[in-house]
Amino acid sequence: MTGNAQTKPAAKQAKTAITPTRAENYAEWYLQIVRAADMAELSGVRGCMIIKPWGYGVWELMQRDLDRRFKETGHDNCYFPLFIPLSYFQKEAEHVEGFAKEMAIVTHHRLKIENGVLTPDGELEEPLIVRPTSETVIGTAMAKWIKSYRDLPMLLNQWANVVRWEMRPRLLLRTAEFLWQEGHTAHESKEDAMAETRRMHEVYRQFAEEVMALPVIAGEKPSYERFPGADNSFTIEAMMQDGRALQAGTSHYLGQNFAKSLNIQFQNREGALEYVHTTSWGLSTRMLGALVMTHGDDNGLRTPPRLAPWQVVIVPILRNDGDKGTVMAYCESLKAELQAQTYAGERIRVKLDARDISGADKRWEWIKKGAPLLLEVGPRDVEGGKVCVTRRDKLDEGKSFVPQGEFVLRIASELGAIQQSLFDQALALQKARTVTDIKTRAEFDAYFGKEADNMYNGGQGFVRGKWSGDPASIAMMETHGVSVRCIPLDQSGEEGTCILTGAPATQDVIFARAY
Amino acid sequence: MTGNAQTKPAAKQAKTAITPTRAENYAEWYLQIVRAADMAELSGVRGCMIIKPWGYGVWELMQRDLDRRFKETGHDNCYFPLFIPLSYFQKEAEHVEGFAKEMAIVTHHRLKIENGVLTPDGELEEPLIVRPTSETVIGTAMAKWIKSYRDLPMLLNQWANVVRWEMRPRLLLRTAEFLWQEGHTAHESKEDAMAETRRMHEVYRQFAEEVMALPVIAGEKPSYERFPGADNSFTIEAMMQDGRALQAGTSHYLGQNFAKSLNIQFQNREGALEYVHTTSWGLSTRMLGALVMTHGDDNGLRTPPRLAPWQVVIVPILRNDGDKGTVMAYCESLKAELQAQTYAGERIRVKLDARDISGADKRWEWIKKGAPLLLEVGPRDVEGGKVCVTRRDKLDEGKSFVPQGEFVLRIASELGAIQQSLFDQALALQKARTVTDIKTRAEFDAYFGKEADNMYNGGQGFVRGKWSGDPASIAMMETHGVSVRCIPLDQSGEEGTCILTGAPATQDVIFARAY
Repeated sequence: MTGNAQTKPAAKQAKTAITPTRAENYAEWYLQIVRAADMAELSGVRGCMIIKPWGYGVWELMQRDLDRRFKETGHDNCYFPLFIPLSYFQKEAEHVEGFAKEMAIVTHHRLKIENGVLTPDGELEEPLIVRPTSETVIGTAMAKWIKSYRDLPMLLNQWANVVRWEMRPRLLLRTAEFLWQEGHTAHESKEDAMAETRRMHEVYRQFAEEVMALPVIAGEKPSYERFPGADNSFTIEAMMQDGRALQAGTSHYLGQNFAKSLNIQFQNREGALEYVHTTSWGLSTRMLGALVMTHGDDNGLRTPPRLAPWQVVIVPILRNDGDKGTVMAYCESLKAELQAQTYAGERIRVKLDARDISGADKRWEWIKKGAPLLLEVGPRDVEGGKVCVTRRDKLDEGKSFVPQGEFVLRIASELGAIQQSLFDQALALQKARTVTDIKTRAEFDAYFGKEADNMYNGGQGFVRGKWSGDPASIAMMETHGVSVRCIPLDQSGEEGTCILTGAPATQDVIFARAY
Repeated sequence: MTGNAQTKPAAKQAKTAITPTRAENYAEWYLQIVRAADMAELSGVRGCMIIKPWGYGVWELMQRDLDRRFKETGHDNCYFPLFIPLSYFQKEAEHVEGFAKEMAIVTHHRLKIENGVLTPDGELEEPLIVRPTSETVIGTAMAKWIKSYRDLPMLLNQWANVVRWEMRPRLLLRTAEFLWQEGHTAHESKEDAMAETRRMHEVYRQFAEEVMALPVIAGEKPSYERFPGADNSFTIEAMMQDGRALQAGTSHYLGQNFAKSLNIQFQNREGALEYVHTTSWGLSTRMLGALVMTHGDDNGLRTPPRLAPWQVVIVPILRNDGDKGTVMAYCESLKAELQAQTYAGERIRVKLDARDISGADKRWEWIKKGAPLLLEVGPRDVEGGKVCVTRRDKLDEGKSFVPQGEFVLRIASELGAIQQSLFDQALALQKARTVTDIKTRAEFDAYFGKEADNMYNGGQGFVRGKWSGDPASIAMMETHGVSVRCIPLDQSGEEGTCILTGAPATQDVIFARAY
């Protein structure tokens, strides 16, 4: 939108909106953005968060887009109980071991009040686990519902809260309670179930890249990082601005493990009883944290247009009461014209911020939240038929003054350009900080062991190279806090030697520090 | 859609799809519909339900419509923790007493596994309550967020699961866990808070009548039936087909009770510190039960078009493989033409049911689920350019054959007519079974005490008459299992005498048995 626009140089910013900056203290910068953008905050309840309006608004848009993709791929939404009896868990040993250390357990069903003192009362015969994930409870229902191959595939999804008792909570990224969707499906054969697992893995990849503007590496998890009870786990891994990896969505082929432990059988086409093959896949509010760590800058969040609750915010600038009538009328009409346009198949979401606080305060609030386009409209703009535009992703270019009609006509392409530019910047970072020339353990140790010398002193970056899978190599990585994030789907197939052990190895993997 | 259509008389139905019928056993009929319509079922987890695809699909449409109404009235969605520390509850005595007997309590945060035996481990210092409602946790956050009158009104809503440990669970109507929305707002004055309380009460009334086709009596709860901690509670009460009342949505003015116990203060316009006035209002998946009990018949559910996940279902009738190509092409094109039409502001939702099971089985499945319009399309219909239409709410009128073009053009008005007809039938029942000529306790006793002689042997109906509010009258009603459902907003204002005590009384109330 710089076509025939006049551009006014940005005022020198004496300081940034977020203190500290990324370079000063990345971990603290993250917390400050989450707060400043009104995304979320920790509550008085240990490890549990409050998701605030801007954060929840982004999550609603994520839900709406994902839900459409799930329905288009044939899935039905359901809702299953929050509580899972202890005995359900007992059936799948590997699964229960994976979650035992972080389960909230309900043991009583009423309170006794005596002299104002409240104590738990009415002990349950069988304790109930607050679901950390729902394979066992949904599998138990499937065992009842599935009779024959005609009932397959069974393709279910639920939007729900889950609880995993985190000893070290981290806002949005790792909290005791979080929101997510969990898909659970049952199939006649391994082939069908694996096709589903890969289909949903690809749905996540497309969603992350197209909607969240989050470039990811799609791959399989090494066996030691699989979901407890899975035969294969697939992941999309994103690089944060400090070079660490963040697991952004996972899709699991569960084989017949849960089918056998929960007795989910069907009569096959030949009339014989057989166990189904199941899958599960999930994506959570953790992605809100990924959004901040990917698109945040030292002035706050830059919300990708596809996920911005308000894509355009109009701030009327009133110098005296006499201005009010004409400026507000101009703003209202601008809002109506913008709302009549569409971007990515939906009406443009426009907020006219008419609150009784200063224009400067509003400006900084929307910059911190990351509304993609901010329009400031004063009496002189009304006279000239213009709008004063700030593009959030190009704050350093300052404000430009664009004729109103031209701005309205170009709104969709402008939002598309911002969406693309956020993706391109994140991809450029991911490429710049993915190292492919490390071949030996010494080089590996030097890379991950050196003093942080790159931007936002954190995880260094991704090392892409050969790995033999030898269990002994795991301890070698762990001394640096590094893990194998995934075995990317695109493999060179070339033979080589394992970076860590020197043994022959063909598979390429991504090594990194992770959130 | 009977204009120029040929009508074929309905085949005599030897039996109904639902056994028993309403007249035979209303309570069991209800459970059978919930099952047959794929709405919900009780799970293996005590008192907890599974909401199945058709039931959840209806709930999603309810959510979408309500959510739009909440946003239009200025509310922001947020998400607050599932767990509430015991100490939060302790602060509001009346509130905790109201919920103490039905609270699920988390006391441990991990499982110990020893020799395959699982036991709760890691006892919490302070037990956590699984939220039965969120006044205390949201109020605690508001106390932190609200500083001045400029922060008011604060208008929040959350979509969440809540847990109230029911000793006698009843599918959809009364379950240990259910889904709902809960609005929580804070205001400068009693006037503002009361206006909000009434505004949301009216939003519920409109939603119930316009979207659920559920005629309701809007009124205030008598003091002895108020929400624990409220100064005033408003309700919408619907009449079920057995004459019992069902509380369908409530809106509460909480005064300064929670503000004082949780210390939610603000600096007012004069610079002094003052407590806010708060409200809360909620509507839950219980409404799915109300839908069944209002619109169900002896063949299953009749889903109001505004809430039907599929408003039109097309069932291809194939007699031999040769038909398949032309019939399916005709159905696909019919589907596309219907989807291009809109009803109530949204695209028509059309399902082409191409499953490999018999047409008769499909027909009965969709009748039980209550898809408003069922189209069966065979080779002869293709030849004649017609569709064979079954209107779910007029099953006894049988099938009609309508030219395809005419059907497509009239689809929106046809769905509107079904929506209206369901509302009209429910309203006619409510009017027919509301008694207004009972003036004495003897008449009251005779009415509620007599052997059930009316349809679906249940609650008799509503008695509308005078009530003094004398506490002694409550026991008189309770002998019949009757309560004061509400004090309707529309009052005659005439003086009279209390039906139960004979004392002077001005207020008109609704007496009824209730779910």
